[in-house]
Amino acid sequence: MHKQECALTAINRPTAPSKKLADEAGLSGNTWQGTLDSEQVLSVRTGAKLGDCRNLSDSLLVVLEGVVKVYQTAANGREITLHRIYGGQICMLSLVCLLHSRGLHAQAVVEEDARLLVIPSEDFDRLMGESDDFRRYLVNSMTYCISGMMQLVSRISFSTLDLRLAHIIHQFSDRTSQRTVKFTHQALANELGTSREVVSRLLKGLERAGTIRLKRGSIEIIDKRELKAIRVATENQHQFYN
Amino acid sequence: MHKQECALTAINRPTAPSKKLADEAGLSGNTWQGTLDSEQVLSVRTGAKLGDCRNLSDSLLVVLEGVVKVYQTAANGREITLHRIYGGQICMLSLVCLLHSRGLHAQAVVEEDARLLVIPSEDFDRLMGESDDFRRYLVNSMTYCISGMMQLVSRISFSTLDLRLAHIIHQFSDRTSQRTVKFTHQALANELGTSREVVSRLLKGLERAGTIRLKRGSIEIIDKRELKAIRVATENQHQFYN
Repeated sequence: MHKQECALTAINRPTAPSKKLADEAGLSGNTWQGTLDSEQVLSVRTGAKLGDCRNLSDSLLVVLEGVVKVYQTAANGREITLHRIYGGQICMLSLVCLLHSRGLHAQAVVEEDARLLVIPSEDFDRLMGESDDFRRYLVNSMTYCISGMMQLVSRISFSTLDLRLAHIIHQFSDRTSQRTVKFTHQALANELGTSREVVSRLLKGLERAGTIRLKRGSIEIIDKRELKAIRVATENQHQFYN
Repeated sequence: MHKQECALTAINRPTAPSKKLADEAGLSGNTWQGTLDSEQVLSVRTGAKLGDCRNLSDSLLVVLEGVVKVYQTAANGREITLHRIYGGQICMLSLVCLLHSRGLHAQAVVEEDARLLVIPSEDFDRLMGESDDFRRYLVNSMTYCISGMMQLVSRISFSTLDLRLAHIIHQFSDRTSQRTVKFTHQALANELGTSREVVSRLLKGLERAGTIRLKRGSIEIIDKRELKAIRVATENQHQFYN
């Protein structure tokens, strides 16, 4: 796990969904969570892959604090980030394993030290049967995930890589409120599902256009308005269901 | 709605998930479905967009028979197919609208005359509260959708367009068990989220390679083994969660 890659965790962090979801879940309201054993909370360090934690199988995992990145890896080692799980959100991979005893085409790695609520199969069944709050929380989390995946498909299908790259740089600088942002070209490649070489070429293109300036290990944003315009354009390119 | 495009409905039809899901759902077992009013079954003709059916909003829709295609459209009119809903499966777009009173970046169109089970909000709440079967069905359907979306992201990110095109032609000929398959280049473009021109160019490439022969309005498969090899390769390119 590169330290630089951890710095990327601010990207795609939604405005305040974790608090919203935590409220919906009653995570902050002491409802169904209070019926669980407090010893079921586990601390997991940055870099741990949840799929490697055998003691976590056959349980639903809820991220209470920290960040977990969900990504896919191709046979050639290339990666793409699917989404990030923040405080108050469910790990969908754990849900699929719990329900179907089989894996998904994805992996989950802790990006920022996390506290996980571990809900064993029997507690999951009990909560589903007894708690309206828990059921609402679960279904809301799943629709949130489905919606996010559809948006990702849209971005990948309809936006060119250079626009997606500009989009992600703007998001990152927006979260950190910094004019100079630090990350490796490889970390950006892993966000986008492409190679480091391609990212480096596209970054040079953005530099030539006067949008950014490349420095050693960081990127200075020269024309934030242009980056924002690209981001708004990529977000508005879809049509809605209703 | 092009007639040719309807012919594509066999693509991506899973081996037998509709029966499996219908069984899981108790749709064929007369459990929770029996508690619903039989008048809540609606016939919808090919070409109807579910988002345009105002009388269907604020309800969960279950496809009992027929096929519904879920797709996204870019501002420039380009399309990509997200998935198809077969008999026994839930329309996730309707679930999102029901729960969040807002749309998704997607649309749903009936591809083969469909019978829809319409479950109004109050019945949905009652079933969630009372029926283990229904809850299991709902959560299974959602994990199935999430898993499918992740596979789609993988295919789009890690496979080149020519491989995805060969993959889809093989799937189609496999379902219809025919050596010559009929479809328009535009319909294939809509499957893949690309333009007709790109599809035409890629098809010519496959023809030059001796894999297919292009005819007026159809494609003859010359080297099915090669197509199958491509399909297996694109399906095996992922790593699993566990």
